[in-house]
Amino acid sequence: MEEEDAGADPYLPYDGGGDTIPLQEIPKKRGSNYVMSNGGGAPSSTTHLLDFLEEPIPGVGTYDDFHTIDWVREKCKDRERHRKINSKKKDSAWEFTKSLYDAWSGWLVVTLTGLASGALAGLIDIAADWMNDLKEGVCLSAMWLNREQCCWTSNETTFAERDKCPQWKNWAELILGQAEGPGSYIMNYFMYTYWALSFATLAVCLVKVFAPYACGSGIPEIKTILSGFIIRGYLGKWTLLIKTVTLVLAVASGLSLGKEGPLVHVACCCGNIFSYLFPKYSKNEAKKREVLSAASAAGVSVAFGAPIGGVLFSLEEVSYYFPLKTLWRSFFAALVAAFVLRSINPFGNSRLVLFYVEYHTPWYLFELIPFILLGVFGGLWGAFFIRANIAWCRRRKSTRFGKYPVLEVILVTAVTAVFAFPNPYTRQNTSELIKELFTDCGPLESSQLCQYRSQMNGSKAFNDNPNRPAGPGVYAAIWQLCLALVFKIIMTIFTFGLKVPSGLFIPSMAIGAIAGRIVGIAVEQLAYYHHDWFLFKEWCEVGADCITPGLYAMVGAAACLGGVTRMTVSLVVIVFELTGGLEYIVPLMAAVMTSKWVGDAFGRQGIYEAHIRLNGYPFLDAKEEFTHVTLASDVMRPRRSDPPLAVLTQDDLTVEELQSTINETSYNGFPVIVSKESQRLVGFALRRDITIAIENARRKQEGIMLNSRVYFTQHAPTLPADSPRPLKLRSILDMSPFTVTDHTPMEIVVDIFRKLGLRQCLVTHNGNVLGIITKKNILEHLEELKQNTEPLSEDIRP
Amino acid sequence: MEEEDAGADPYLPYDGGGDTIPLQEIPKKRGSNYVMSNGGGAPSSTTHLLDFLEEPIPGVGTYDDFHTIDWVREKCKDRERHRKINSKKKDSAWEFTKSLYDAWSGWLVVTLTGLASGALAGLIDIAADWMNDLKEGVCLSAMWLNREQCCWTSNETTFAERDKCPQWKNWAELILGQAEGPGSYIMNYFMYTYWALSFATLAVCLVKVFAPYACGSGIPEIKTILSGFIIRGYLGKWTLLIKTVTLVLAVASGLSLGKEGPLVHVACCCGNIFSYLFPKYSKNEAKKREVLSAASAAGVSVAFGAPIGGVLFSLEEVSYYFPLKTLWRSFFAALVAAFVLRSINPFGNSRLVLFYVEYHTPWYLFELIPFILLGVFGGLWGAFFIRANIAWCRRRKSTRFGKYPVLEVILVTAVTAVFAFPNPYTRQNTSELIKELFTDCGPLESSQLCQYRSQMNGSKAFNDNPNRPAGPGVYAAIWQLCLALVFKIIMTIFTFGLKVPSGLFIPSMAIGAIAGRIVGIAVEQLAYYHHDWFLFKEWCEVGADCITPGLYAMVGAAACLGGVTRMTVSLVVIVFELTGGLEYIVPLMAAVMTSKWVGDAFGRQGIYEAHIRLNGYPFLDAKEEFTHVTLASDVMRPRRSDPPLAVLTQDDLTVEELQSTINETSYNGFPVIVSKESQRLVGFALRRDITIAIENARRKQEGIMLNSRVYFTQHAPTLPADSPRPLKLRSILDMSPFTVTDHTPMEIVVDIFRKLGLRQCLVTHNGNVLGIITKKNILEHLEELKQNTEPLSEDIRP
Repeated sequence: MEEEDAGADPYLPYDGGGDTIPLQEIPKKRGSNYVMSNGGGAPSSTTHLLDFLEEPIPGVGTYDDFHTIDWVREKCKDRERHRKINSKKKDSAWEFTKSLYDAWSGWLVVTLTGLASGALAGLIDIAADWMNDLKEGVCLSAMWLNREQCCWTSNETTFAERDKCPQWKNWAELILGQAEGPGSYIMNYFMYTYWALSFATLAVCLVKVFAPYACGSGIPEIKTILSGFIIRGYLGKWTLLIKTVTLVLAVASGLSLGKEGPLVHVACCCGNIFSYLFPKYSKNEAKKREVLSAASAAGVSVAFGAPIGGVLFSLEEVSYYFPLKTLWRSFFAALVAAFVLRSINPFGNSRLVLFYVEYHTPWYLFELIPFILLGVFGGLWGAFFIRANIAWCRRRKSTRFGKYPVLEVILVTAVTAVFAFPNPYTRQNTSELIKELFTDCGPLESSQLCQYRSQMNGSKAFNDNPNRPAGPGVYAAIWQLCLALVFKIIMTIFTFGLKVPSGLFIPSMAIGAIAGRIVGIAVEQLAYYHHDWFLFKEWCEVGADCITPGLYAMVGAAACLGGVTRMTVSLVVIVFELTGGLEYIVPLMAAVMTSKWVGDAFGRQGIYEAHIRLNGYPFLDAKEEFTHVTLASDVMRPRRSDPPLAVLTQDDLTVEELQSTINETSYNGFPVIVSKESQRLVGFALRRDITIAIENARRKQEGIMLNSRVYFTQHAPTLPADSPRPLKLRSILDMSPFTVTDHTPMEIVVDIFRKLGLRQCLVTHNGNVLGIITKKNILEHLEELKQNTEPLSEDIRP
Repeated sequence: MEEEDAGADPYLPYDGGGDTIPLQEIPKKRGSNYVMSNGGGAPSSTTHLLDFLEEPIPGVGTYDDFHTIDWVREKCKDRERHRKINSKKKDSAWEFTKSLYDAWSGWLVVTLTGLASGALAGLIDIAADWMNDLKEGVCLSAMWLNREQCCWTSNETTFAERDKCPQWKNWAELILGQAEGPGSYIMNYFMYTYWALSFATLAVCLVKVFAPYACGSGIPEIKTILSGFIIRGYLGKWTLLIKTVTLVLAVASGLSLGKEGPLVHVACCCGNIFSYLFPKYSKNEAKKREVLSAASAAGVSVAFGAPIGGVLFSLEEVSYYFPLKTLWRSFFAALVAAFVLRSINPFGNSRLVLFYVEYHTPWYLFELIPFILLGVFGGLWGAFFIRANIAWCRRRKSTRFGKYPVLEVILVTAVTAVFAFPNPYTRQNTSELIKELFTDCGPLESSQLCQYRSQMNGSKAFNDNPNRPAGPGVYAAIWQLCLALVFKIIMTIFTFGLKVPSGLFIPSMAIGAIAGRIVGIAVEQLAYYHHDWFLFKEWCEVGADCITPGLYAMVGAAACLGGVTRMTVSLVVIVFELTGGLEYIVPLMAAVMTSKWVGDAFGRQGIYEAHIRLNGYPFLDAKEEFTHVTLASDVMRPRRSDPPLAVLTQDDLTVEELQSTINETSYNGFPVIVSKESQRLVGFALRRDITIAIENARRKQEGIMLNSRVYFTQHAPTLPADSPRPLKLRSILDMSPFTVTDHTPMEIVVDIFRKLGLRQCLVTHNGNVLGIITKKNILEHLEELKQNTEPLSEDIRP
């Protein structure tokens, strides 16, 4: 994807009427009637010539695909629209209703988005659960139930054998008629791989044929879109449909991926689609991005059951330009989505996520050491993963291998399935794995991880007995977890970037949870066997349960996710909302902070920024600080060796000259200056507008010839008597282009671009135009600086 | 307080070395060594004249009191400093240590701020509690214990008579020797009033004598300071000390005020004081404001025990300019503060606030009707309060009455004490009142509010019995609550704005909680007596407890607080953190949203913005939208009737002419133009810099006379042979002033000012300077527009 706007895109004067008023008249005229005397942009026609261009020209004001929007222009358009509605609303009851509709449409659209996101998330959860279990067997009594539901309905099970229930048949039982033995194991193995391959193949084919944008996590693209880039169809209805279906398939296929990132994409699709119901949002790219901000909050809200975390995620990670304004609506959307999901109750526990946990024991100060170690692990994993994954994705992009996405998916799925089946911790759904790792061992817990020796003795005194030597089950589990860890680490690198919907949150969390649980059990056993050590003696009271391995799993999960995404506050709040206890925020913060610092030491980009850079999206990161000492004159075009800047003079060009200037260059816009002698800046005119204007004039105005004079001034220049009728182009001139002087430090220019959302900026020296800086120039400049001075970016700055 | 900067303040060229390089050399020179070849701002002395001014002049770069800071300049200064440290850090171990210290100072300062805020909050809580109880009596066995602690230590009490314990003596018992009877009642009444008056008088005298800035809530001023205004001493150590002491006194005096707002001020004082330990923050006004943002989060965190709510409060309500950057540190500060407070455990329940609640029953959909009604009440109360309070404060400012602040405080305290004592709900501490109103009636609750008839019968079946007809205690309580409501409403209007520290959160919440509890009990009784009504039949199951009056109190409190402050997300999150249940967010949101809309219908300003406007602080509200169609040329100075803009020419002024221009005008800065004939903009020079430069030159450079030529250009102009030595002022010229064209719509100009934090902006037309726009001009313009078009601002825009 290449951005093509070297200069700039269609660009209209902000004030429809203002530019037809002679400068001298302004103070008088404006002073008498400050507010809306012109009734919203209709030209206050004191015009003396046929100003055909003052009617809106169709197509002007929209953007081409893969172009950057101009936030300032969009916001002006919206205020203009608002003024128009406001001025009309007292005219009639109908207009008043329309203004009410307009005022409420913001709330309506986020409500609808929240409803749809919650419903889709519930649907995806249920479908993925069912299909995931389909790999292992079916429910005989009711095909449409997953294993858990199947076993619930058959009342014959006790807690002890929750996993076994007569209604649920695995494939070996169904096909071979026997549940045990090597033959049935192989049969199950085969069926598992078969289903996994079918799901994955179906998913990748659907994506390839119907909606190529449905692949990946979508967050890098959404970040780019929210920063003001246009990618048509990326949030369309086909993408939504295919992404929803293939997300279920991809999750069910057992690949090392999650549904959380794609859920944000799905929610944004909903937001985008609903925004088409409301002209306020569909016709304004800046306003539409407000809806998308809210939608991404709703997406995280349903992904993790964390409405506040979702809002902070949208604020910290995704949104670019106006976070505060949308805060309240984002919060509302996130809540609506969470409540819809809870009404659907996909997990049957009236919780929003599978891995909601409650711990009952506090943590002790000395535990910060292992927590910080987990943070270091998370940071290292994040840095390693980003480098490895980016290297692999770059290889995929640059070699022939990338041309066979279906084959690649099948291959990865096959490897995943073959290696995953033998190990119970990789065979099961990743969410369930995380749940099991997070959960503390209680008296009712039957998992292998909780087979401590005292518990195996069958006493019910579990909670009273702090002596918990690990039993053989725990040791076996640790080995299996170690294998699962290596497996997940390798597979995730190759999976993220496949042409199927794939989120990174769940695999990252799983890796962290495995590492955390292992560390937790190790510390627990250390505390048991060496309870007379200074540390344990000081903190662990005798007779009290001291170490909670589940908490370590949670901290590890947060650390790994932090290492990969470099999220901070939102991540802590999301995990905080999973546990609901203020108590565990400090361990989480310690781990997440460590992980971010360790990760940043190896490169400051998170995985999303790295993918944005890999794909070359025009994204000007708001978090990255510009630390160099270059000036605007170093970045502007034309450079020293280039031909001089293509400019237009305000009143002495002919139509022919103008056309040849346009045809000889590829710039999208041209500064207009006073005259060849005096390069003082008058305004900025866009290629597209000029072309349209000339064509329109030729069709509609008589007497416009090739040697007609073109003028951008208020009054026609004095011409010889025999010259043809002149062409007035003042109405397409942007009279308020942004300018900086050539001495302005680039850090200020970058700041202006980020904060105001500019597309281009003119560079002047003593009032004369010297050159132009576009967003693309800045990105190129940043890239150049980065390559020249890589070591500099690794300075210590927490 | 009047801002005096018509033009602008000291302002240095951003790049110390850049401006001595001739323009033609830039691309070559810069292209070869992009990064820091100049080693951080030291001029790359290719200078051919004695450029004495290139040494930093002491005093330049600081601000006067009551002036606005220039964010862009401050940020450039910080980056410069950072580059300098970075370039030096490889020189020696000491420099490396310094760079590490610099990198970590941000974390250190927020940690210290968090620690101090938490400790002070704990101290204030404990002291205020003790002094509050002192009004009614003392603990004989240990003077330093408050009533609750006193009764705890005496082991003789049971739950039923928690309020009565032998160690605690009220004043009548101590002085008259009898606890009951009219005489002792009058004695207690007298002592209550006596202590209240003593506390309040002491508080107001301390404030008046030692730290006049310690009065009020401080939030309007902190908002103004964070938006970039300088008020020296407002966050100083005296203010901190006096505010802490007088806050305790004011709360204990029983006035209708809270400690939450002032706690934010106290935390900001801590942040400001600690920032002086770190040159990174003490020498840079913009960086200091990052610390203050974090400090205000810590303040709310300890005020409400809501760290996340605190961060969102800082983001939504207080901070102005760079919320995202400080998010993570604010969060950290808030957490540290919360943990310190919890370690101090001022309330003895290991909670951060007195009124932490847990509800056990869900809410039903039909309850949204009373919740929304509470929202309407909150909005009406907010609008009414803001108008009444502002009217009263304006009266105080404008009439002679304001000259006697001590008398006013004594009067208000006397009235408060006299009317508060007879009613138990106004006599007690407002926080305790809120706690009692929030708490649901459980079997152990002995309060009058829980004297339902079934409970009075003495059965333990309370929880199983949904039939709860109100007993006489409840009816009596309702009457008393109604009186308390009226009392609080009236007193709060007169209290907020007194010359003592006074927060508004607690009184507002109390008013809402009283109204909510009354509505809750009404709905409860309605459900009891009309349990066959459609609504109740549908939702309230038989045998289940259906209505929770405590929840109504909480919703009412949120609604009233929302009406007064117009906070949204942060308010909901703060109250959510009080209850810890996601469940009750929807009622809260419904009420807060309704309250905001109802309040906004009567005027869009919250109480803090209203006070900012009343005091005339130069605060450019980031939330308020600019909806008018004026252009930059309508706002700029000079206006049509004014004398022409005072400009300097770049190379044909003499020192004498320059001095007379400066002396004849009062502007703080002057645009520098090419020549009288061609008004093209070259740069911007500040009055203060010019004055300093001329004085310095006279002292240090020989041959500078009154008729010396002054030049701002790179090279000296050619002069007649006999002319005196010219004076070069290029180094004080800002070569990159911000400019807009005269056609730029004001909405864009306002946006630029807000987002970039400018102080002034030059207006050009075709490259020529026309005028200047300062922040003050914009504020005046907004005020003008508001007065001309008041009805417009009340449009329907939720």
